[in-house]
Amino acid sequence: MKKVNRREFIKTSAAVAAGVSLLPSGIILGRDDRKVRLGFIGVGLRGTSHLELALARKDVEVKAVCDIRKAATDNAVKLVTDAGQKKPAVYLNGEEDYRNLVTREDIDGVIISTPWVWHAPMAIAAMKAGKYAGVEVPAALTEEECWDLVHTSEETGMPCMILENVCYRRDVMAVYNMVRQGIFGELMHCHCGYQHDLRNIKFQPGAEFGEKGQGEAVWRTEHSIKRNGDLYPTHGAGPVAKMLDINTGNRFVTLTSMATKSRGLHNYVLAQGGEDHPNAKIKFALGDIVTTMIKCANGETVLISHDTNLPRPYSLNFRVQGTNGLWMDDFDSIYLEGVSPEPHRWESFEKYQEQYDHPLWKKYESDSEGAGHGGMDFFVLHAFIESIKRKVPTPIDVYDAAAWSVLVPLSEQSVAQGGAPMAIPDFTGGRWVWRKSDFALDDQY
Amino acid sequence: MKKVNRREFIKTSAAVAAGVSLLPSGIILGRDDRKVRLGFIGVGLRGTSHLELALARKDVEVKAVCDIRKAATDNAVKLVTDAGQKKPAVYLNGEEDYRNLVTREDIDGVIISTPWVWHAPMAIAAMKAGKYAGVEVPAALTEEECWDLVHTSEETGMPCMILENVCYRRDVMAVYNMVRQGIFGELMHCHCGYQHDLRNIKFQPGAEFGEKGQGEAVWRTEHSIKRNGDLYPTHGAGPVAKMLDINTGNRFVTLTSMATKSRGLHNYVLAQGGEDHPNAKIKFALGDIVTTMIKCANGETVLISHDTNLPRPYSLNFRVQGTNGLWMDDFDSIYLEGVSPEPHRWESFEKYQEQYDHPLWKKYESDSEGAGHGGMDFFVLHAFIESIKRKVPTPIDVYDAAAWSVLVPLSEQSVAQGGAPMAIPDFTGGRWVWRKSDFALDDQY
Repeated sequence: MKKVNRREFIKTSAAVAAGVSLLPSGIILGRDDRKVRLGFIGVGLRGTSHLELALARKDVEVKAVCDIRKAATDNAVKLVTDAGQKKPAVYLNGEEDYRNLVTREDIDGVIISTPWVWHAPMAIAAMKAGKYAGVEVPAALTEEECWDLVHTSEETGMPCMILENVCYRRDVMAVYNMVRQGIFGELMHCHCGYQHDLRNIKFQPGAEFGEKGQGEAVWRTEHSIKRNGDLYPTHGAGPVAKMLDINTGNRFVTLTSMATKSRGLHNYVLAQGGEDHPNAKIKFALGDIVTTMIKCANGETVLISHDTNLPRPYSLNFRVQGTNGLWMDDFDSIYLEGVSPEPHRWESFEKYQEQYDHPLWKKYESDSEGAGHGGMDFFVLHAFIESIKRKVPTPIDVYDAAAWSVLVPLSEQSVAQGGAPMAIPDFTGGRWVWRKSDFALDDQY
Repeated sequence: MKKVNRREFIKTSAAVAAGVSLLPSGIILGRDDRKVRLGFIGVGLRGTSHLELALARKDVEVKAVCDIRKAATDNAVKLVTDAGQKKPAVYLNGEEDYRNLVTREDIDGVIISTPWVWHAPMAIAAMKAGKYAGVEVPAALTEEECWDLVHTSEETGMPCMILENVCYRRDVMAVYNMVRQGIFGELMHCHCGYQHDLRNIKFQPGAEFGEKGQGEAVWRTEHSIKRNGDLYPTHGAGPVAKMLDINTGNRFVTLTSMATKSRGLHNYVLAQGGEDHPNAKIKFALGDIVTTMIKCANGETVLISHDTNLPRPYSLNFRVQGTNGLWMDDFDSIYLEGVSPEPHRWESFEKYQEQYDHPLWKKYESDSEGAGHGGMDFFVLHAFIESIKRKVPTPIDVYDAAAWSVLVPLSEQSVAQGGAPMAIPDFTGGRWVWRKSDFALDDQY
């Protein structure tokens, strides 16, 4: 399948380059009834969650799993065999063993759920081996890595899908549906962000991280020591980018970022470990709240918050505002001029959720029950798998992966330069002007 | 009184320069039982509101009123005489006649409620004539005007108070009280702004403004045609500045601004006047939503929204966030770690409002009933009048007026330069390091 896919995607890329919209109608190739064969790189908490969702489907075979920890691959193997599938091949021989997984002839795509620094190299290796790359967020850490992803996808013809699950959150998709139908009028301004108290994830157990840490504390905390910027923008920027048609008629042009001082993590170490704990001496580079403003080619602005070190209620801080009104995530509120019952008064989003519920959610609601993060994890994996099945581009593609992930290094650079504006590259090479979105157009994937 | 005041304020300025905190205890001079004598420059809607509040007090005599419209001064004169006071002198002889009002010997202070362009010249003239200047927001339109205000106040020893009423909003003052008591921990980040659909104020009647307009449409709309930036930041920036001790231990250091495209006003003209209305041809410079980020000397960030051209519920968009938790204006919500009943869940601000209600509000609640904007207009005028009575500096001073008002031109410059950071001047000449706040410290003013 590898060679077919590669050829197919050269053709596909050419079709895209010619302005042909590839709808998921299967017109390019007939639907393939063969099961989609996946490999999983990284089967920690996140990878295991993806694995379980894949195993719950009838159209997936899990051929291989990879991790650097035997406990992780053991658990993954058990999950696969318990699901009645054949024992998958295991890649456990150090950090580079994933390269042997991606070159297997019997897989169509890989799911990458590893620490951030591995995302881009693994996705690139997968594409070079002729596989669909499904990669967790952010897809890259540097601008150069973003370009490498794009160039690799273009050269190999293989898709790279950033697995941004929030694009499929039920309310977000209803709002997306409303945006496409023009209910908000012309979009003007969006808020979004990652406002999530991660202190007990960055330190686990107690005040520990790194070698003494558990879970994401093993690797994630180090980023807060060395880096200052929006380290995790895509949960907000991704969904908003789809609403704003970024890379398909619009693009991110420039950003500026500012960071507050850093207090939350140090205070947490003191509270958990006391003043004499060795981690109490650490200076954290990451400002507790990092705010980023983006200007878009079509004149809209986007505001992104990164707020992970302080106590607060969880919120992705969505606001979608157009010439007719606006929706706010916090307190599920909406106001539409001439539609909302009282002038200038919020109303509950509830009835709009029903009215504009996305066809995908209507169709797959029961399938998504129990899936992670309120069901949305089902949909992001569904989109990846259905794209492979249809041999079409993924609805969230390498240009999205690059445009959303590059916000991380550019935000760091802007913070370091006192809020100076940073140019956001046009990864599409000018094709954003006429490219068409194929994200969630109907109830298929 | 003019000469006494001027001498007194030279003395006062010297005391301030020496680091002496001037509390409103009357220790510098004994309390003066003579009534405070005011002149009113501009008696349109806003000035009349101030006038009515002044007339409701027993400690004020209104000696003079000034406007360019006879209907306005006629109405003001009637209000004064109806209140049982002597007929005030009237200054109605064109745009410069206010200069004759400010030089009267029988007034202690002036209230300036005129179109924006007149604020700084009038306040400067008042101070030069030895009068307390109370000036509506913003106090100035250019950086040079801000400096002129500061230099004039320093040279004359006369105070200039920007009449920022939202500093006295009841919930804002309760939050300010909490901030001073350390309930939020160390402050990290604030949101604020002016989110107010002004379309039917910028156009009145119908699609008219300027010579054919009424009310603020006569002069305010023109600013939306020519200028692009945060034209009206002080309702948010003022209260937040007081919480962050701006000019008294902290300062605004730099800002960046971005603006969306402009759609709302043009659409409104079309809706009100049709495509053939002459105003349908106007190109509006003002982006519908302008977002500004500020970095403070002590490491906090402030986000300011300006959103006046689109349909939306009114909101000043307050958020005050510290190391212990945060308050949000929208939906009166608060979360405090270890205090709020459920971890990471919003609770209603209601009980905090009771617990931390500011002493000023407790004392003057009944006096403020019926005063504009939910009562807060009472307090801002009260502070101005009580400062004059005590012959002390106003609790919101010329450095505040300058630091808050300069955000307007700097925001315009940043927008014009693609979001480039703009240095915010230190109008205190370095004294912010040790200056102490005397804003709303107790229940006096």
